[in-house]
Amino acid sequence: MSKTALVTLGLVSVLSSSVFAEENKVPEPTANGIAFPVNYQDWDIVSVSHREDHKSVRAIIGNKIAVEAVEKGQTNPWPDGAALGKLVWKARHDEHWKPAVVPGEFIHAEFMFKDAEKWKDTAGWGWARWLGTEQKPFGKDAASAHSSCIACHTPVKNQDWVFTKPAILPKRIR
Amino acid sequence: MSKTALVTLGLVSVLSSSVFAEENKVPEPTANGIAFPVNYQDWDIVSVSHREDHKSVRAIIGNKIAVEAVEKGQTNPWPDGAALGKLVWKARHDEHWKPAVVPGEFIHAEFMFKDAEKWKDTAGWGWARWLGTEQKPFGKDAASAHSSCIACHTPVKNQDWVFTKPAILPKRIR
Repeated sequence: MSKTALVTLGLVSVLSSSVFAEENKVPEPTANGIAFPVNYQDWDIVSVSHREDHKSVRAIIGNKIAVEAVEKGQTNPWPDGAALGKLVWKARHDEHWKPAVVPGEFIHAEFMFKDAEKWKDTAGWGWARWLGTEQKPFGKDAASAHSSCIACHTPVKNQDWVFTKPAILPKRIR
Repeated sequence: MSKTALVTLGLVSVLSSSVFAEENKVPEPTANGIAFPVNYQDWDIVSVSHREDHKSVRAIIGNKIAVEAVEKGQTNPWPDGAALGKLVWKARHDEHWKPAVVPGEFIHAEFMFKDAEKWKDTAGWGWARWLGTEQKPFGKDAASAHSSCIACHTPVKNQDWVFTKPAILPKRIR
């Protein structure tokens, strides 16, 4: 192999590993101290929604503790350790089935982490949102990272601050 | 412990285990020979939709092979072994946020299993649907178990018979 080829190969190798590192970089925590839930795309489906006012569609997902709580019907209150995520996309009409509203651009992923004691000043939940596919933390300081979440969720404070009623699903087979 | 208490305990025990067995019973295969995918509620989110014409909302999920194909952008054709599921609920308006359309009654779970050779007579896919929370197989014979699926999916035969364009998601961190 020529010297040029070796140098080129070396450069490609350095570039590849830096791209790889970038792709695998964990997004920053939010200003209210919530770590990014790295594996959330492995969580299970809890519900879906289409907000006609906001022109967005959503998948609502839950971690293992949340899904077990759903199965036991123990969601008011949700148990400590439960985490719920909402993946939000701009709504668009499917090109092959016009009356179907489907996901367009990814807007954000937002989360509620239940810990009644740790988050006692914010309704028992840690609130967090990461914007866009680059997953930029929402909120410039601790207060702004959760205040708009709580304001919007106030109508459902009697159902432990969660809008989502878990979707009816067949019983899992274990 | 009295004799009556022992007998009662015995009966309760028999009843509990029979209820447990019933809940864990695997639904029947479809008439076109497709086994029920027992663990589908563990699959990952691929997309969501709201069919305004059908007044239903849907979660589209995929098995591991399908999700890896999505990440690699290799979905036309989908690889053998990929399986996609669609969970379908009647649409209703959320009681606390009226312009949000959310899941009501569970209608069915339907699936496409890719195997270009095995299913060469049905567009490369095994088609299956189980109705209601009791998961009753759809179709009274082999032909009727897939013919209506294929008829409806014909407009998307150029995208390997799949309506769903996988939703944009942030790159997974591994």
